[in-house]
Amino acid sequence: MDGFKAILKSKAAELENSLEELMELKEDELAPELSEAMRYTLLSGGKRIRPILTLLTTELLKGDYQAALKSGSALEMIHSYSLIHDDLPAMDDDQLRRGKKTNHLVFGEAKAILAGDALLTYAFEILSELELEPAKKIKIIKLIASNSGMLGMVGGQTLDIDAEKKELSLAEMQKIHAAKTGALIKASVLSGVYCSVYSRTEKEALQKYAENLGVLFQVVDDLLDVTGDTEKLGKKVGSDQKLDKSTYPKLLGVDGAREAAVEYAKKAKNSLAIFEEEAEPLIKLVDYVLSRQH
Amino acid sequence: MDGFKAILKSKAAELENSLEELMELKEDELAPELSEAMRYTLLSGGKRIRPILTLLTTELLKGDYQAALKSGSALEMIHSYSLIHDDLPAMDDDQLRRGKKTNHLVFGEAKAILAGDALLTYAFEILSELELEPAKKIKIIKLIASNSGMLGMVGGQTLDIDAEKKELSLAEMQKIHAAKTGALIKASVLSGVYCSVYSRTEKEALQKYAENLGVLFQVVDDLLDVTGDTEKLGKKVGSDQKLDKSTYPKLLGVDGAREAAVEYAKKAKNSLAIFEEEAEPLIKLVDYVLSRQH
Repeated sequence: MDGFKAILKSKAAELENSLEELMELKEDELAPELSEAMRYTLLSGGKRIRPILTLLTTELLKGDYQAALKSGSALEMIHSYSLIHDDLPAMDDDQLRRGKKTNHLVFGEAKAILAGDALLTYAFEILSELELEPAKKIKIIKLIASNSGMLGMVGGQTLDIDAEKKELSLAEMQKIHAAKTGALIKASVLSGVYCSVYSRTEKEALQKYAENLGVLFQVVDDLLDVTGDTEKLGKKVGSDQKLDKSTYPKLLGVDGAREAAVEYAKKAKNSLAIFEEEAEPLIKLVDYVLSRQH
Repeated sequence: MDGFKAILKSKAAELENSLEELMELKEDELAPELSEAMRYTLLSGGKRIRPILTLLTTELLKGDYQAALKSGSALEMIHSYSLIHDDLPAMDDDQLRRGKKTNHLVFGEAKAILAGDALLTYAFEILSELELEPAKKIKIIKLIASNSGMLGMVGGQTLDIDAEKKELSLAEMQKIHAAKTGALIKASVLSGVYCSVYSRTEKEALQKYAENLGVLFQVVDDLLDVTGDTEKLGKKVGSDQKLDKSTYPKLLGVDGAREAAVEYAKKAKNSLAIFEEEAEPLIKLVDYVLSRQH
């Protein structure tokens, strides 16, 4: 695991560089405080799991690593914008994110909304500039747009808000999670696929991996909100309970949720069987996500 | 002018159909209230000037009309999202838009933010699905993303908020307008260019047209805020003055602003000289925009 943690660290550093470069002040900079608000959340650390998925998938398929680095950076911008908007007073009203004040507490609500809008828009500009043939770029743009919009992440976030204080069935809750968290994770893996040459079997295996990893991700996140530590996590724990949200621990109990996590981790790993030992980094990533719950 | 008004009306109807079709409830609809919030602002009338520019430009250059209809629809979604976010309490805090309650007053702030996010994201999905060769689609996506983001519309909106209660010079104010309003108008005309086969001279002429039309647009908008009528406009007049904003009438006086409008209208028309009488619809559009100030 230690060797893999070093890999994660070096990938995160590569992404940090890529994001820094993309966010360098431009000569024709219009509104410096807008860039500052964008940089504040985008460059505030974060585990960079989504773009790391793009990078590891591209390495597995021996695809175009530079294109993966840029696609992953665009995905991280979309993830970042969603955090800024989700934290707003009208949404989850969060004060703390990655151990720092949330964006709107530092820059005000108007700037936070605009910084989110600008990050989302910039993501598509970056994707349009990938050094890939145009048809591949279009495939990636369509993939990311459809998974982060009304039938993906934004739709899931809407359902999530509506679901507060409602009793959901496991199936209803999973539908929300699949959209809110799962869709962007799927897009991250498939972006790596589209940065590469791939067979249908390979794509299907990786998609199944991404779907199971997405659920695992959410189960662990739910568990951390119950068993985690505000200081260590850098965000407030217990907020799901405060909002009386349907979560895995609430529906299955803490032990049941832990069992579910192990189950989804196993499914995610099994879906990569066709790649044999070449899939080791993606498999270790599952173990890494699973290990966060303790 | 009456004949031209009929053209405007029929183009607006075509766009209405296109937007309705794109917003039809999908079978895999996730969050029906999100679509409802998106539809509420997107399909609330509006003059559809931006996509009409795309259509008229494409007709002038005998380009791909169906692609122009879809690109124009995407541009209108971006315009719509910007209105929803601009009207939020944290931004301009407006209650009235096109004669109806603003989005957040009907759906709540959280849904209004999400509806804006979803419209912006959907615009790029639509562009990725244009029936054009991939390289052309990429050109349009890059054009629209770069003009609506931090160096374009969103950057301009940020400057505009910061400029409230500041004394701006004419040059400073024009820089803000060029980004806030001008960039999307330029992108609308150039989208039409990219839906067509064009020469460099044609593109440059149309870009110059768009830039001057963009300024004219803003001068007329500023004038209407002083001389217009809330009921007829469907939005509250006098809000610039309330916010003590730098506007053309404030900097040049009402008469000075009227002269400036005539000047920019002339420049816009003159830039189309190379097209001779074929440019008539785009020229009449200038007269139409100019005529709105009275």
